[in-house]
This record gives sequence, structure tokens and C-alpha cells, in this order.
Amino acid sequence: MAKDQKKQPRPKAETPKGFRDYFGADVTERKTMLDRIAEVYHRHGFDPLETSAVETVEALGKFLPDVDRPNAGVFAWQEEAVPGGGSGDWLALRYDLTAPLARVAAQFRNDLPAPYRRYAMGPVWRNEKPGPGRFRQFYQCDADTVGSASVAADAEVCAMLADALEAVGIARGDYIVRINNRKVLNGVLEAAEVRADQAEDVLRQIDKFDKVGREGVLALLTVGRKDDSGAEIDGVGLSEAQAQPVLAFLTSKGATNGETLVNLREAVGASVIGLEGVDELAQISDMLAAMGVGEDRAIIDPSIVRGLGYYTGPVFEAELTFEILDEKGRKRQFGSVAGGGRYDGLVERFTGQKVPATGVSIGVDRLLAALRAKGLAGADTAGPVVVTVMDRDRMADYQAMASELRAAGVRAEVYLGNPKNFGNQLKYADKRGAPVAIIQGGDEAERGVVQVKDLILGAKIAAEASLDEWKAQPAQTEVARADLVAEVKRILG
Amino acid sequence: MAKDQKKQPRPKAETPKGFRDYFGADVTERKTMLDRIAEVYHRHGFDPLETSAVETVEALGKFLPDVDRPNAGVFAWQEEAVPGGGSGDWLALRYDLTAPLARVAAQFRNDLPAPYRRYAMGPVWRNEKPGPGRFRQFYQCDADTVGSASVAADAEVCAMLADALEAVGIARGDYIVRINNRKVLNGVLEAAEVRADQAEDVLRQIDKFDKVGREGVLALLTVGRKDDSGAEIDGVGLSEAQAQPVLAFLTSKGATNGETLVNLREAVGASVIGLEGVDELAQISDMLAAMGVGEDRAIIDPSIVRGLGYYTGPVFEAELTFEILDEKGRKRQFGSVAGGGRYDGLVERFTGQKVPATGVSIGVDRLLAALRAKGLAGADTAGPVVVTVMDRDRMADYQAMASELRAAGVRAEVYLGNPKNFGNQLKYADKRGAPVAIIQGGDEAERGVVQVKDLILGAKIAAEASLDEWKAQPAQTEVARADLVAEVKRILG
Repeated sequence: MAKDQKKQPRPKAETPKGFRDYFGADVTERKTMLDRIAEVYHRHGFDPLETSAVETVEALGKFLPDVDRPNAGVFAWQEEAVPGGGSGDWLALRYDLTAPLARVAAQFRNDLPAPYRRYAMGPVWRNEKPGPGRFRQFYQCDADTVGSASVAADAEVCAMLADALEAVGIARGDYIVRINNRKVLNGVLEAAEVRADQAEDVLRQIDKFDKVGREGVLALLTVGRKDDSGAEIDGVGLSEAQAQPVLAFLTSKGATNGETLVNLREAVGASVIGLEGVDELAQISDMLAAMGVGEDRAIIDPSIVRGLGYYTGPVFEAELTFEILDEKGRKRQFGSVAGGGRYDGLVERFTGQKVPATGVSIGVDRLLAALRAKGLAGADTAGPVVVTVMDRDRMADYQAMASELRAAGVRAEVYLGNPKNFGNQLKYADKRGAPVAIIQGGDEAERGVVQVKDLILGAKIAAEASLDEWKAQPAQTEVARADLVAEVKRILG
Repeated sequence: MAKDQKKQPRPKAETPKGFRDYFGADVTERKTMLDRIAEVYHRHGFDPLETSAVETVEALGKFLPDVDRPNAGVFAWQEEAVPGGGSGDWLALRYDLTAPLARVAAQFRNDLPAPYRRYAMGPVWRNEKPGPGRFRQFYQCDADTVGSASVAADAEVCAMLADALEAVGIARGDYIVRINNRKVLNGVLEAAEVRADQAEDVLRQIDKFDKVGREGVLALLTVGRKDDSGAEIDGVGLSEAQAQPVLAFLTSKGATNGETLVNLREAVGASVIGLEGVDELAQISDMLAAMGVGEDRAIIDPSIVRGLGYYTGPVFEAELTFEILDEKGRKRQFGSVAGGGRYDGLVERFTGQKVPATGVSIGVDRLLAALRAKGLAGADTAGPVVVTVMDRDRMADYQAMASELRAAGVRAEVYLGNPKNFGNQLKYADKRGAPVAIIQGGDEAERGVVQVKDLILGAKIAAEASLDEWKAQPAQTEVARADLVAEVKRILG
């Protein structure tokens, strides 16, 4: 009795809140996609890097505005301080793949090739409130070049991104890589005589260009506007004259890169940094052409402003341009699946040295969703041929059949549940998505034959055929045992 | 000044203690190996499962003997209890792939096929004291069949394990899968009239069979012995007569499974459970033969006692039998790279229902070390062709060359560092393991040619050739720009 009272309640079998498990095709489809991307990155000279999932909170840094709550945004814990064991350090799960790259680039700076091209693919963790489609563990897929100040590195990343999208199956014309440059915007701000203390506000407002359009941004940059709810949004306080170059920048995209560059040169006026930015875009445009990447695949587009606040030079974004139906059945463009740009502060936190870097991150779940929407995520997800068990004393015979099929390259398995109820075996084959079931009872064994049941044809007949057609059982064939493999291969085509 | 005084010291760029990063070939060689194993598992009808890295401590359970220290053995942290947000639950990183399988098998028992064959590959985390070659994050690679009581499932796992070892490159004859059965041991203990309270001690002692041999185990089972340091080790207190069947069991391996089975039948005497165990081994032997897995690949071996304390039926272990040199230069067999067996308690903690399961876990790092020792870990780890930069205004030309090479399937990149010092570019190519460097200065560009430098031949000549031979520069060829790709492909063979 005393023991019973102490008995613990059974634990709940639940994935922790905000986390999920991936089954079968979830795993293989993502893997197939990432393998194809890795193949492109590899061919471009990028090397894989797999850092530990755990970092010291000190090295991660960034997510720690509040030292009293070192786990805001990350999953963190303190090591026990044990002599010879735990260090008492705070450790945390990485929240992205860039912070670990920064740590590695600093830690191994004497061993790594310079410049260092690396790609990384793997889970990251965010200690955030989960929501629909918003998980606390998800995949990232990054490629970065560390230690090159040349815009050739940026052009290469853009070309590689376009190649990667095609490698996973996105057709040319169904995507576009858009390229902008923070330096051009800086030049525009200079030309418009925007004060340094206004620059951040300007960036925040032009970030809304997508949503509120030209007139909306004009209002936001000057006197303010009412939003949809009727609330007054303060303006930045620029004059109309100051706002004009900013708007000119945002709307400077021409029909070709050549036209866009002319417009941009006008928008930056005499600003040295602005002209440097335009020259960089011109170089990137030339390089892309040299690499055989036409403007139908990657194009200069100053309306891309996402990330301009973070990046220091070229920025890029890959967008899928085909339409899908949203949850309300409305057509909309699929939208952004990757973004990146040039940043300088990567290693500086650790070494004090500015190291130029540029890179791109593909939104793994979004891209996979796009492939599924287009029916392009097809990894080999076909179920196995199921060898049913009519006579449990002849398991070895059934296993021999499955082995022969596998030796011929056919995915195959023997039913391993309780064989008593044959209906359960066919239900199992159905649940497994089996294309074919093999049946051999004692009678068939004596006659040296097997029944080969085409489950796909069978399902079709069950759905469409008349009773007579169904009775004729064209989906089930008796063949000699020696012809088993050939017959299955015939059915699988 | 005030600002300077507040300045934080720079963070240390260090992988946390006990963790490591994987670079380049570390990643691709492991990936290639796991891909080949996954292909074998897939062909056998196993589906991939990727559970979240994070579990509730409640679901992980097992590692919590001490409720005051819920993080003993695992990395654990408590969620903040926030309305609508964190649950206040203790979360932890998974310490293996079996505990998450148990949780999934219970949570999704109505959705998963039954039996459920799944494989899983991924990192696990242990909050243990790190040591040489002993990390706190490492890979596991498991395959399990949940919900089948049939020894056909065990036989299948053994056959699949043998196939997997060959798929990664281990030659037939260089490995052996050894199979034993806990039930046979139970029968032997019954036959020897070992008391229930002695059974665990007996298991602990026979676990030392590998080290101390027949006479050592005899002493340990009876009156005890002195270990190498001279310390007295207590014996279990069996009589010599009781110890005999146990020793007979351990040494019952014959030249063939047939002989071994005869010996085992003798060792278990009239024990019902023992005879059941011997029958199971006989069935497994027959099934392996039917699957074309000969006794040169998988064999019954009662001397395999590792895991007999944990498993409830068949146990298996894969051993690599070729010799390597250990750290002291002595020849020794490589040893165990995988192990598994049948266990019943998997889902019981959650549902109260016993669900039979069997599976195998491959030691990823050990198997990879074995492949490297045999020169079999060869993923495509060749460095890229490096296109050097003689004239930084012609970056687009160099990028066009790299693009053409890539389009022809050749891994290639443009040097992206500061091109001023050409020696640095060749040093870079060397560090990258580049097989070929491409050189085109202004003069060559005008003449429409490029220099193609065979770096592998070059290194060989530098090491072996006379001065005259070296001056002849046979490792560097001038070709027409249009022949660049063909010449590189010729060199790469």
C-alpha cells in the first residue's frame, strides 16, 4: 500500500509546447531539398560547417539586453560549478547560424582559409511565444563569405542563390533575386540633408513602403498619417523637398538595370557614399551578366528595403513570383523565401577587428512549403511493397521474398504484426502507402506460385469499376515464385 | 570616459567545454555515411523520424533518480511561467533517440502504422564530464521496430545492420554481427538454481567475461578473486556446480549455429524460458539464412553479454574484425560499432501498456573512425579549382571562368581576398586543397589564352624533380580561353 501511494502519475506523452516532430516525408522532402542546395553551394567552393548546438551565452551575446534575464529570446541554463566538471557558465541553444559563424571565424581565424566560404544547415531555437506555424525549433540554411570586401562576393552569393532555387525545382521565371544597396540609401539621405538623428526614423518608415506605397511613405516622412485604425502616426518631420530623393530612390527601378542605375545616380546627387553604392550595384550587374545570370533571374530593385537597417552594403532578397491561394482562397504571390546582404561587425565583438562578410539565409520551411504548393517536393516517399504473412511458420520464406525484392532495388518489408487477421494486413499495407502486396498461402506455396496484388490499380478499380469488373480481380495476378521480382517491377513501372 | 569605464570586456570566442565544431570533410564524410545507411533502412521499409531536440523532463523521465537535481545527466532548464507563454515546465535536451521514440510511439499510437519501423539520425546531448574523445553532443543513428513481438523483427534488424555496414564500405569478412538471447541466460540461471536476488550480481560478473576470461568469471561467480591492483573482489557465492551452466553458456559457441544451438540446449536443461530462447535463436538463424545472410556475416555467439542486463530477448552487437594500430602502436581489433536488442518497457511508462520493440544503434563516431582508418570515408572532399585574380578590374571575366567550370560540373571559385600579392593567392589555393589554379593576366587576356596550373602535379614535381625539370614547368599549361574547361577536365581526369 505504501508503495502504491508513492506511485507517480504517468508522464504525459507530449511534444513540448511550440516544438514539433517530423515524420517520413517531412524529413525526406526537406533533406532532398537541402541536399540539392548543398550541392550548389559545394560547387561554388563553399565548405560545410556544423557548429555545436550549444554556445556560451557570452559568445551569443546579442540577445542579452537585460542581464538579469539571460534567457530572454534564447533557451539558456547555468552549468553547475563543479571542480573538474561544469564551469558555472551560462549556456544556451543557438538562435541562428550567424552568431556561431562569428564565434568560429574569431576562434579559428588562424586556421581557416581567408576568405572563408561556408554553408550551414541545421536547427536553431527561439525562446518565443509559439503560434500557428511558428515553432520554437526550426531549420535555417545559410551561406556566407567571411573576409572579402569585394562586391564579387555579393554577386557570387546572388548568382548562387538563383542557382539554388533552380536546383530545388523552381523554374526560371518563377523567382527573382532583387538587389539593393544600403550605401545608395545613405547617399540619398545625405543628398536630402537628413540629420543623423533622423536616419533611423527614415529607415523605419521606408520599411513600410510595401504596405503603404509612395503616398503613405511621403506622409510618414513628413507630417505623419492616419493608419487603418484611425490612429495618428507621427511623421519624421522632413520637408517635402527632403522626402523627394528618398521617394525617388524607392521608385527608381527601371525596365533594365541600366535604367535603374541612371535613376539611382540622379537620386544620390553628389554624395560620395551614394555614388560608391551605385558603382557597386553596377559592378554586381556586370558580374551577374558575366556569370550568365540574366535580369530575369537577378535584378537591381531599390524598392527592396527589408534589412537595409541591418546591412551595410548590398542587400538581396529572393522572391517567388508565382501565385498560390492563401488560406482564404485568394490568389497571392508566394513572396520572399531568402534574404541576405553585407555586414561588417561579424567578428568585431570578439577581436575588435572589423571583418567584412556577406551572406544569404534561405527560409527552409517557406521554401519547402512553396515546393509542396507546386508539387515539386517529391522525395522518394513511396511506401514499401508489403509481403503479407499467411502462415506464421513460413516467416523465413516471406523474408526471402522481401530480400529478393530489396536486392533488385525495390523497397520491401514483411508484415510483422499479428498475422491472424488478414484484413488487418491489408489495412496496414494501405496505411503504409504500399503499391503492391505479396500473398502466398500454403496452397500457393505447394504450387510454387505467389499472388501479386496491385494496390494502386486495386484502389482505382474499387472506386470506379462495376461489380463484374471488380469480381474479375484484374489487380491481382498469380505468378510463378521465380517471377515474383519481375512481376513487381513490371507493376511499379 | 564614463562610457569607456562601462565598456564590457570582449567575449571569449570559444566552443563551450565538451562541445565541438565540425568543418568541411568532418561534415560531408559523416553525411555520406549516414546517407548510405539511411538508404539501406529505407529499402527495408523503415521511415525517418526527426523528433524535436527538446523534450519535457517529465517525458524523458529515466535520468531523474534525484528529483532535487532534475538536470543530472541531461541539460535541463525551467520555462518561465508566463500567462499565454512559457509553461513553467522543466525542459531538457534529449540524451538519446530511444526516449523520444517512446514518447512519439505513445503520443501518436493511433496514427502510426503498427508495427512501426522507424530510423532516426541526429545529435543527442549528455550533461557529463567531458574527456578526450568524449563530447557532450554527439550523433546517434538508430533503427527500431515498435509493436512486433516476432523474432522476425530481430532477424530483420540484424540482416539490415549487416547490409548497412557493407553499404558504407566495410567489406564482407571485416565485420560480424553477433547474436545472443537474454532468455537463454535466464534459462541457464534457472537451470543453475540461481536465486532471484543473485541474478543481477551474476549479470554484472559475466559482463567481465571479455576481460577476465573463463577462470576469472568462475572465481567471480563463486568465491571472488583479486583484481590487477590486488584488491579483493567479492564473489557472488554460487557453488562450482551452479557456476558450470553459466560458464557453459558463455563458452557454448560452436563452429556453426547448429553446433552452438546444440550446446545451448544442453546448457538450459529443462528450463522453459531457456528453451524458448534457444528456439528464438534457431528461428533467427533460419531467417538470416533465408535472407541470404550467411554465418560469415551474422552468427549466434553466447559470449556477447553486453546489454543482456537491459534487453529482454535477442541482443546483437556488430563488431569490426580487422586490425588497426592503437595509440601505442599495438595491433588490436577495431571492435564494436553497433548494438541493440529487444526491450518491452518502451511505451509502458506513458500508457501502462507493454509494447514489444527491437532495435539497433550504430555508434556514428566509431564507425566513421573505422572508415577513416580504412581509407573508406571518402566523400567528395576535393578542394575547388581556384581562379586567381591578376587584374581586379576584370573580376567579371574571372567569374565567367568559374561559372563555365561549374556549369561543366567542376567545383570552382574565384579568389575573393585582396589580389595584390599573387603568392597569397597560391597559398590560399594550397590551403583550400585546390587541384588546379587558373591564371590570366592582361597579356594572356589580350592573346585570348589562360594558364592552367596543375597543383597536384606541381607539388609532386616540387618534391621530386631536379632544378631543370622544375624550370620546364610541365605543371603549367597555356591553353586558348575557349579550351579552359576541357583542359581542367583533362587534368582532373
